[in-house]
Amino acid sequence: MKSATEYLWFSTSRQREYINITEDVARVVRESQIREGMVLVSAMHITAGVYVNDAEPGIIQDIDEWADTVAPKGPDYHHHRTGETNGDAHLKSLLVHHQVVVPITDGELDLGPWQQIYYAEFDGQRRKRVVIKALGD
Amino acid sequence: MKSATEYLWFSTSRQREYINITEDVARVVRESQIREGMVLVSAMHITAGVYVNDAEPGIIQDIDEWADTVAPKGPDYHHHRTGETNGDAHLKSLLVHHQVVVPITDGELDLGPWQQIYYAEFDGQRRKRVVIKALGD
Amino acid sequence: MKSATEYLWFSTSRQREYINITEDVARVVRESQIREGMVLVSAMHITAGVYVNDAEPGIIQDIDEWADTVAPKGPDYHHHRTGETNGDAHLKSLLVHHQVVVPITDGELDLGPWQQIYYAEFDGQRRKRVVIKALGD
Repeated sequence: MKSATEYLWFSTSRQREYINITEDVARVVRESQIREGMVLVSAMHITAGVYVNDAEPGIIQDIDEWADTVAPKGPDYHHHRTGETNGDAHLKSLLVHHQVVVPITDGELDLGPWQQIYYAEFDGQRRKRVVIKALGD
Repeated sequence: MKSATEYLWFSTSRQREYINITEDVARVVRESQIREGMVLVSAMHITAGVYVNDAEPGIIQDIDEWADTVAPKGPDYHHHRTGETNGDAHLKSLLVHHQVVVPITDGELDLGPWQQIYYAEFDGQRRKRVVIKALGD
Repeated sequence: MKSATEYLWFSTSRQREYINITEDVARVVRESQIREGMVLVSAMHITAGVYVNDAEPGIIQDIDEWADTVAPKGPDYHHHRTGETNGDAHLKSLLVHHQVVVPITDGELDLGPWQQIYYAEFDGQRRKRVVIKALGD
């Protein structure tokens, strides 16, 4: 069994930002020389997500507005008694989920034609990480 | 390490449809001869989901109505500037998630008594795919 | 390839409850002697979830209230024609997702500083299970 592990660091300039990391994941898979396996891509923070969807700019804006409708910013989260102000970002992370697993087939990411891997930052302007872990043969 | 890969094709007659694929996944696992491992079941499209829940027809209707409440159809998605009309289907895919991982124990899918694996089509009436990738020993 | 499988049993005193199971998962990983791999943590019921987020009590209360806003309790689910009353718990399970995969690096759970693994019970007061399946080398 082969494995490979890599960490991506982000420090976004905006509070919410959506970054296409498909090429980073593809590179880790190529360098691992795994032909058949799976690669886990997982945010290491509780106010960020990783999802698979379209790279079309309109849908990214829709996802951002939708996440803010379903899990709105607001002053009234219990979490804010700690001094934090990012309760909504925790819920947005749960909503889009913080991780995906992508199959590796024949040495490549086995994604559909429109599938791209995104890092979703919901509470940015600080250094944060994603772990990429590939496993297979 | 053993692995097995198979693709399921769907072309639903309705725009939204929920298809029980548990038996297909179980067959791939049996044919793989993997005794201990994991099987990833993942939609290859950005307007479809894969989830684990009950086969009871009422709850399937509830899931459909709930997804349409939380991520409603509508004319006003930014994504529709491209000519598309399926913005809601992208969000429904994020809501129920596009994939699950099922443990393989003793050569069988290790599911609870009521757990069934569903393909959730949110923008059907065209050919679409799910990838099943089993990994283990 | 090494693997390890363990089941955690729960029987909560309240209908909804959030239980930190990080230490249980860490113990299974240590006992498996896997150095590099992945561990799947998955609810075996359709009215429970497993998620990764913060152990801060305020955010747990926020998650509970948010799940009840997005997937409210109510009398009107189609599922209730079967005599069940837990339609909302099925939807809450889909909302927070019923599983996570955690990377294993250097023999340890590779979690970020605030990431904790939670079992989310949405229809408790009965015996329910989570499966932990570790895979790697």
